[in-house]
Formats: sequence, C-alpha cells, structure tokens
Amino acid sequence: MDQFAGRIESLRSIMRSRGWDAVIISGSDPHSSEYVSPRWRQVEWLSGFTGEGDIVVTDDHAGLWTDTRYFIQADRQLAGTGIELHKTCVPDQVLIPQWLSSRFPSSEEGPTVAIDGLCEKMSFVDSLDRKFNVVDVPNLPDLVWEDRPAAPQSPIITLGEEQVGWSREHKISWLRKKLMQSGCDAIFLTALDEIAWLLNVRGADVEYNPVVLSYLLVTMDDVDWYVRKFPPSRDPETQDSFYELKADGVAVKDYDDVGLDLAALADDDSVGRLWIDPSTLNYNLYKVLESVSADLELVRGRSPIALRKAVKNEVEIAGMKEAHVEDGAVMERFLWWLERQLSLDSGITEYDAARKLSSLRAEVEGYRGDSFQTISAYGPNAALPHYVTPVSGSALLEPRGLYLVDSGGQYVFGTTDITRTVPLGPCTDLEKEDYTLVLKGHIDLAMAVFPKGTAGCHLDVLAREPLWHSKRNFGHGTGHGVGFYLNVHEGPQDIRPSFNRQPLLPGMITSDEPGIYREGRFGVRHENLILTVSAGENDFGSWLRFEPLTLCHFDTSAIVPGLLSQEEKDWLNSYNKRVFDTLSPLLGKEISAWLQEKTRPI
Amino acid sequence: MDQFAGRIESLRSIMRSRGWDAVIISGSDPHSSEYVSPRWRQVEWLSGFTGEGDIVVTDDHAGLWTDTRYFIQADRQLAGTGIELHKTCVPDQVLIPQWLSSRFPSSEEGPTVAIDGLCEKMSFVDSLDRKFNVVDVPNLPDLVWEDRPAAPQSPIITLGEEQVGWSREHKISWLRKKLMQSGCDAIFLTALDEIAWLLNVRGADVEYNPVVLSYLLVTMDDVDWYVRKFPPSRDPETQDSFYELKADGVAVKDYDDVGLDLAALADDDSVGRLWIDPSTLNYNLYKVLESVSADLELVRGRSPIALRKAVKNEVEIAGMKEAHVEDGAVMERFLWWLERQLSLDSGITEYDAARKLSSLRAEVEGYRGDSFQTISAYGPNAALPHYVTPVSGSALLEPRGLYLVDSGGQYVFGTTDITRTVPLGPCTDLEKEDYTLVLKGHIDLAMAVFPKGTAGCHLDVLAREPLWHSKRNFGHGTGHGVGFYLNVHEGPQDIRPSFNRQPLLPGMITSDEPGIYREGRFGVRHENLILTVSAGENDFGSWLRFEPLTLCHFDTSAIVPGLLSQEEKDWLNSYNKRVFDTLSPLLGKEISAWLQEKTRPI
Repeated sequence: MDQFAGRIESLRSIMRSRGWDAVIISGSDPHSSEYVSPRWRQVEWLSGFTGEGDIVVTDDHAGLWTDTRYFIQADRQLAGTGIELHKTCVPDQVLIPQWLSSRFPSSEEGPTVAIDGLCEKMSFVDSLDRKFNVVDVPNLPDLVWEDRPAAPQSPIITLGEEQVGWSREHKISWLRKKLMQSGCDAIFLTALDEIAWLLNVRGADVEYNPVVLSYLLVTMDDVDWYVRKFPPSRDPETQDSFYELKADGVAVKDYDDVGLDLAALADDDSVGRLWIDPSTLNYNLYKVLESVSADLELVRGRSPIALRKAVKNEVEIAGMKEAHVEDGAVMERFLWWLERQLSLDSGITEYDAARKLSSLRAEVEGYRGDSFQTISAYGPNAALPHYVTPVSGSALLEPRGLYLVDSGGQYVFGTTDITRTVPLGPCTDLEKEDYTLVLKGHIDLAMAVFPKGTAGCHLDVLAREPLWHSKRNFGHGTGHGVGFYLNVHEGPQDIRPSFNRQPLLPGMITSDEPGIYREGRFGVRHENLILTVSAGENDFGSWLRFEPLTLCHFDTSAIVPGLLSQEEKDWLNSYNKRVFDTLSPLLGKEISAWLQEKTRPI
Repeated sequence: MDQFAGRIESLRSIMRSRGWDAVIISGSDPHSSEYVSPRWRQVEWLSGFTGEGDIVVTDDHAGLWTDTRYFIQADRQLAGTGIELHKTCVPDQVLIPQWLSSRFPSSEEGPTVAIDGLCEKMSFVDSLDRKFNVVDVPNLPDLVWEDRPAAPQSPIITLGEEQVGWSREHKISWLRKKLMQSGCDAIFLTALDEIAWLLNVRGADVEYNPVVLSYLLVTMDDVDWYVRKFPPSRDPETQDSFYELKADGVAVKDYDDVGLDLAALADDDSVGRLWIDPSTLNYNLYKVLESVSADLELVRGRSPIALRKAVKNEVEIAGMKEAHVEDGAVMERFLWWLERQLSLDSGITEYDAARKLSSLRAEVEGYRGDSFQTISAYGPNAALPHYVTPVSGSALLEPRGLYLVDSGGQYVFGTTDITRTVPLGPCTDLEKEDYTLVLKGHIDLAMAVFPKGTAGCHLDVLAREPLWHSKRNFGHGTGHGVGFYLNVHEGPQDIRPSFNRQPLLPGMITSDEPGIYREGRFGVRHENLILTVSAGENDFGSWLRFEPLTLCHFDTSAIVPGLLSQEEKDWLNSYNKRVFDTLSPLLGKEISAWLQEKTRPI
C-alpha cells in the first residue's frame, strides 16, 4: 500500500472507533498563516501534496480541495495515493460544505464532522456548524501522526525605530486610539505578521516568514504576548528581546495559556468589548470567547493593523529601496553566472541555479533567509506557476528556450520578490511572442497613472489586455502586497480581478507579475515590486503612480520589437538604464561590462 | 419672494399644522423610474431643479441632494431659491438619513419625518424607520401643488414575436419557471420597463421611455396588470392591445386597486411565497405586503427580468442594427446640415440644431420619439455633462471650437444613443488634445478582447487610462446598458469603476462614452453603443469582444495624430470606412460625397 494510502487508513480506523463520518484536515495553522511551520504540514504528511489545500476523508473517499494555481502539481503529487482532486476557484466548484451536504444527504441530525478547531477559521466552521455535528479536536493530527514535529521556537530579535520608523510604544498607542474610536477596550490578534509588526519583533518560526508563533492581547492597560518562549529561552538574543519588550510594558506569557486567559476575560471588568478578526481567528479560540460572551461583547471586524502595516512609512520605504539595490546586484551576479555556466556547458540544473542564487543572497549583510522557496524552472517546468524544484533529478538547463526564476530575500531592512524569465539561447516564435506580450502587460501596469481611490481590481486589466488581445491569459492574480521584512504576501490590497475595494495608497508595495503558462511547453512571468507614490494634484483631483523598486534588467534578446509601442520601449530602455546606473558601481568590471551590453536600448 | 421660496413656505405651513419636523420630497415616481412623467416632477416644481435629486425641508432649512453629474446645473438652477446643494457621490458626502440625524440630535423619540411612501424605495425608508418617526403620506405633493398634473394615459401598442423574438406567452412561462426554481408562487413587478418587456407592450407614459404606468402581479395561474386604462380607453389602438392581452390571459385591472389586491393575497391559498424586488418596490406597497406577511412570505431578490431583458435575442439585435443604420443616416444628414449652416453663417443656435436633429429622426418610419432630451451644447455649455438646452436664449453656434450633441431615437425596432463632438472650425491645442485623448479611450475600450466572466468595472480603465496618463478624468460612468425600444438606461451591467459584479454577456448592449469637461471652457464626449459578441474559444477559455452598433463618422479634423497608436488609427479608419460604406447608399449624392471626404483615412 502507498505510504499515504496507509496514513489515510489509520485515520479511518480512528474515525470508525470515534463514530466520525468525516474528518477535515486543514492546510493551515492556528494563525491562518499562508506558509506554515513543519508541525502544521498535516496535508503534506497525509497526501504528499505540498501546495495550499485542505483534505476531507470519509469512509469511502479522500479528497484534496485546492485552487487553480495547484491543479497540475496536485495531479502529479496525488498520483497513486487514491486521493481525489477537487478543484476550487473554477466556475463549477463544489466547496467542502456543499460536498459534505451532498455526500450525506439523508442523515437526520447531519453527519459528525471532526475538525482541528485550532487550524480552522471561525468563519469557515460557522458555515459548517449549521448543517453538521461538528466535533472540535484540537491537534487532531496528533492522533495519527506519531513523529509530528513540535511547534517551532526560533530566536527572536527586535527592530528599533531607526529600522522601522515607528517604535512599539508608538504603534501600541496608535492601536489603542483605534480601539477607542471603535468603542472597544481590547483586541485579540492572531495573525503572526500583524503581531510581529506591532511589537517590532522578528523570528523564524515559519519558513520564509520572519514571524514568531504567538497570540497577542492588547487592552487599554496591558499588552500580553503569548509566545512559545516561556520559561525564557536560553538564546541570548531572545533573552535580550524579552528584556526590551518587558521594559516597554509587554508581558511575555505562555502560548498554551491563551485559552485560559481568554476565558478569564469574563471576570475582567476593564474589558467589555473585545475586537476580534473573523478572517484570522481560529474556531477553537472563538468558541472559548463565545462561551463567555455573556460577560464580554465580541466586536467583529478586520484588524486595523493590516492596512496600517501595508502603508509603509519613510524609514521602511528607504529600507525596501536599499534591499532592492542589494538584491538587484545579487540577481545580476546570478544572471551573469548563469550565462557563463551555459557558455561553459557546465551542466547545471534548476536546483544548482536555485542554490547558487540563495548563496549569493546569503553574502549580503543583513540577509536573514529567502522570502519564499525559489522557483527555478526550465522549459515545461515553468508552466507550473508554483513549481517546486526537486533537490535531485531537477532539469538540466540547456542553451535554448526560456528559464524562469522567481525568488526573493528577507533582509533586516526589507523584503524582495522578483521574477525574471531568461532566454538561455534561441527561442521559438511563440516563446518570443509570449515573452514580449507578458512584458508589455507588465510595463503597461507599471506606467499607470490613476486617481486617488482606484483599487487594484480596476488596474488589473492593464497587465492583461495585451495578452487578452491575442486571446491569451494567466490564471493567477497580477499583484500581491509585500511586507517590510515580513511576509512576502500580505493584504489588504492586491491587483487582480476579484472585487477587492481596498484603494491603492501611497506607500503600499505590490507586485506586478503577469505571466503565461503553456502546459508541457514553457512559462513566462515578469515580476517587479512597485511602490505607489503621489503623482501630484490638479483640477481633476489627486493622482498616483507606481515606482518600480526592483532593480534587475529585463533581457531584450527575446523581445519582438513590433509588439511594443514606442512609449513601452522608452519605459523599458529607461528602466534598464536605471538598473545599470544604480547597480554597476556594485558589480565589478566584468559583470558591469556584461550588464552594459545587456541593457543596451532597443 | 422667489416663486420656489414661496412654495417651500407653503409646505412649511402644512408641516407646522401637522407637526412634521421634516419632509422628504423624492425625485422619483412609484416605480423607481429614472425619468418621470410630469405628475412626479415635484422636485422641479418645488425648486426649479430639473436633474435627478431629492429635497428635504425643515423649519429652517431646504436642501437638494444630488450627485456629481448635476453640481454645476444645480448651482445655477437653485440660485435665488434659498435651497442649499448637498453633494452626493463625493468622499465626504452626508446622505439624507445622516443629515437628519445630525439636524435632530437630541430628540428622544426621533423627529417626525413625512414622506410620500409611493415615491420612496422600501430600502431607503427601511433605513429611516429605525431612527425616525416616519409618516407615510401617499401623494404628499398634492397638499401644496394645486395644479399638479394627473397620471399619464398614453396609447398602448403591442409588439409581436417577429419584432421582439419572444412572445409574451413564452416570456410568462419562462418567468414562471424562474419562480418555481426559486420556490416562489408569484412575483410582483413595479419597474415599468420590466413590465413592458414581459408583456410586449409599449406606451408613452414617461417622456422618452416607451413604458406604460402600471404594476404587474404574476402568479402560477394569473397575470394581473394594474394599469390606468380601466375602464377601457377610447383609443382604438389601446383597445386592440387590451383584446390581444386578454386573449393571452392577461387580466387588465385598475392601477389604483393594486394596494387592495396585494392585501387580499393574504387570503389567496395559491400564493404562499411572493418575490419582491427591494430595488424597485415602493415603501407604500411594501408596507401593505408586510402587513399581511403572517399569511404571505416575502422573498426579496433582484427581479430575474432585468438580466434576461439586458441579453438581447437575435431578433432584437437585428432590430437594433437596423435602428442604428437609420439613426446613423439621420446623424450624417444632421452633421452635413450643421456644417452647411455654419458655412452660410445662418446664425443657428443650440436649440435650432436640436430641433433639426429631432425633425430628421421623425422622418424615419417607425420613429416614436427621442430616447432622451437631446443635449445640444456649444463651447462652455458642453462642460455640463447633462446640459439642458434652453428653448429661448440658447447659445449661437460659431465657426470655431467644439459642439457636443448627445441624442437618440426610439424606433419600434430599436433604441439609439449617440454622442458626437463636432469641431465647428479652428480648435485650440487643448481642445484638440482632449478630443483625441477621449477618442483614444473610446477606441481602446471598443477594441477590448476579454474572457468570459469579465465585468464592466474591470474594463472601465481602458477608456480612462489615456486620460489618466495626462492626469485628466471624467466624473461619470463610461457605459450604461440600453434597452430594446425601451429605456435608454438599463441594468444590470454597466462600465464604470463601481464594483458591479455583473459580467458582460453576449447580446448585451452598452454605451462606450468617455468624456472630459472643462468648466467655463468646453466639453468632449464620444459615444457609440457596443454589442458584446463572442470572440471564440481556445485553450485559455471563452473570449468576448465588442461590436459597435452606432454608425456615424468621428470627425478627424481635431485629432492630434501623434497621440494615437497605429492600431487605434487603423480602428478609426476602418470604423469610418464602415460608416461610409453602410450609409452612403442612403444619403444621396451630395451628402455621400461630403461623407467620403469626412471619412478619409488618417
């Protein structure tokens, strides 16, 4: 029996003994994180699938629910497991609650569905609660996953005002003002990046996300931080961080005590109205709060931190710019190395390239890790927008066609995320056309000027219309928010067709990454991070535009010049010139000369 | 005392005698119509304001609430009345309920607010009900408006299957299927264009809108039409229509009996669940239905007719195309005449031009009237997007600058809506630039190719970005739906930044009308109607595009060629050629030769 089929059978025997009709295995952690630490990779453990998704197991069915981004990957990774793929974000999608309803149509009381309430959002379970007999089993995977990793306890560092612009005292008093304005006495925070932002702390508890596994309760008098570092860690940096936080009035408490302390709020006269964010609070803790709701009014709303965090201040913007100069120099060194290896015919693979790129980033002072797993994909592999480069047996790079590399770094002064599609040699006409049309879309969005109040979903079409015009498209969003030395994906803004009303505000940093994917053939994506800045005011109102932060040339060798307007060519030439002017002083003679050649105007 | 100030004082004396703290005078009619018949022009009667808006009167304040489209017009028309302008659709707007709350902050029970419940949407009053003591006075304006016009009773005609594609039996059985699918037994319709569509009837009860003032109740067995033609009209066409409708099972009842009959539904065992549309049902009738809701479940939802009506069938599309050929020939005759008058220096005014245009339309067989009041605006007057050309004293057209004419016809085979901005002679550089950039936006939207599922708010930016790029903009939507020999404005689709999720579907007809308005100087708008059509399918999905229905050349003399791309020029040349090829056979030698000159490629 397949390893994963065996694990599912173990789960089924537990189900039978406990009388559960179905189990939902969430792909998330107690903090609604997009990336999770190894402890919460229960979906991967059960199925081998490494993307984002949830699993439902019944006595005669095991299914994985995942979205468009992962269809090809799921097909491959689920092969032989007996787990069926359920596609989401498609017109005829059947989501988990609907599927369960149709699977158990005739039961009188509704079937018994077991979940790990810690790993499910309150809003998701709320929708189940009405139809099913939901059993909340905290840490449910423990029942079958014997060598499940422990929760992470990486070192904690603090960042000063000179690094992030706002001190934690300043942020806490800003948050208390927000609470007062909305008539609340307290807020309970669960999103790890919001906690890290508010406390000016960083950790490494989640791969690629410099966050600390924790909860935070902020009242008018107290700041209680529930963290897995209590009793105090033996790591000296973490100890120093704790001293600093205590001096600033942050009480460090045990992560596992949070439930008890939340229940005790019922007896706390100073807390009458508690702000909770249904988009991140987990079901288990929500139930705790609901059980004391006679004494504590719960006010549901998006946490005010998400928006505040997305609008970078001047210090953060300066840091992000510095990060992009350093990261740009890394990218140019990498691309130079790549071209050299190919000309030397040294037989490098996708994996070798990814390793080289990480090692070049690691040479930068202040580098703390990559901001996500590098996608290093050659030829047909690049047709998977979220390709995972295998450690062994990855594809050999050859001097033809397109190589796609999507990567980024976490530096103490900023976060980067860049994709370049690199022609490794002669390209087909279709490769060149796609390369050019995606770049045209990238440039058209980058050149946009728009009035105050415009949301990303209004601008998304600018990146797509050049592709749409020849009936091509891509199945992912055009842009996501990026944190300051924080998560590489953050809200609340984005650039995609969904009807997200959040306007783009000056100081927001978003990606501009159209692409095209041809299964079995190749993929193209061009990605810069762009900063929203003011473009002045006039009789018609206030105007905004984008400023590219990313600094790395776009290869002009695969461009079909006739597909670009003069204005688009001007943008490209001026961007490439700026890349050369900014980076060449950092690159040494040989690479500089090479870059000068690469950035020759078209 | 100003005439309008006097009327407001009369209203105030009624208010004092009845103990009302405030009166809301709605600008609409009992059917949520955009255009209303003279009986419901109470806002104009009270204030002189002819746009869309509502008035609130208290003992010490009279205010008009209206949106961006009407600010300049309201400023002019309210001058001297003492009525204050309250701007809506602006960031800091204070809507009527908020304003009333701040005006009467301390009252214990809430102030008494009188309304005409027939002319207010149920959803609007619902929001008032919670805070104020609302008094519903049906036909409230009667109290002060002595010579108030009666409700209209224009002749009624019917349209056959060969004219509209679907017979009324077909439509009624389609509607009953929709009711069954949503578990309803009946639907109560109030929107006049929905009733006209369903019954294949047309009237002239509202200026420019070929509708019949009526309500409609459709159950599984009956179709009850409450109309002001009972006892039967003496008009022979109307009598024939009534015979035809009765033969098809439509019972003609008295408009004024609708309230009683709705109340009687409580005793009708065949009607258990009634579908109502909160976006059009008036408060007065809603209250009637609510009073019997113990015996009748009200199911709230958008009427299914709105979407069905917006997706034109093949017969309707063929009719609309024919209408645009006829209307295009009218427009070309008009533009030729206009140029000739200017060259003869015959001293024509905006009003003369508008009259000429209507008279040319009236020559078309099947013409039933204009589809809205022609906007004939020269120079600074064109800076008002909804300029009303005065009968006397309108501006003289001179052989320089820009003249804007926005007009349309109602034909029994279709409805048109077209705007052309006409250079009457030499133009300034700014006029030319604006003329060209607006045209560029018009063309970019017209050329769009987009995947199935795309909504108008995704495409809106295509018409704006050419303007935005030089920090110019316009304050109205880019496009509205257009009915088939019905209202020139209809939903549910539109093309504007609001987050309307309705996708554009094949068969929908929408306007493409970007503009620019420079107060005190000039205005530009270029408008065609565009039909959404399939553009085929491929690996990336199903594709749609637009086909322009409107046929009338765009004047090339004011174009700055450097501002258009080759692709945009190609579109324009090919469009103008199509106009010439299609219309010249209808135009006679002299106008044809002139049009050939006008449509010479650039």
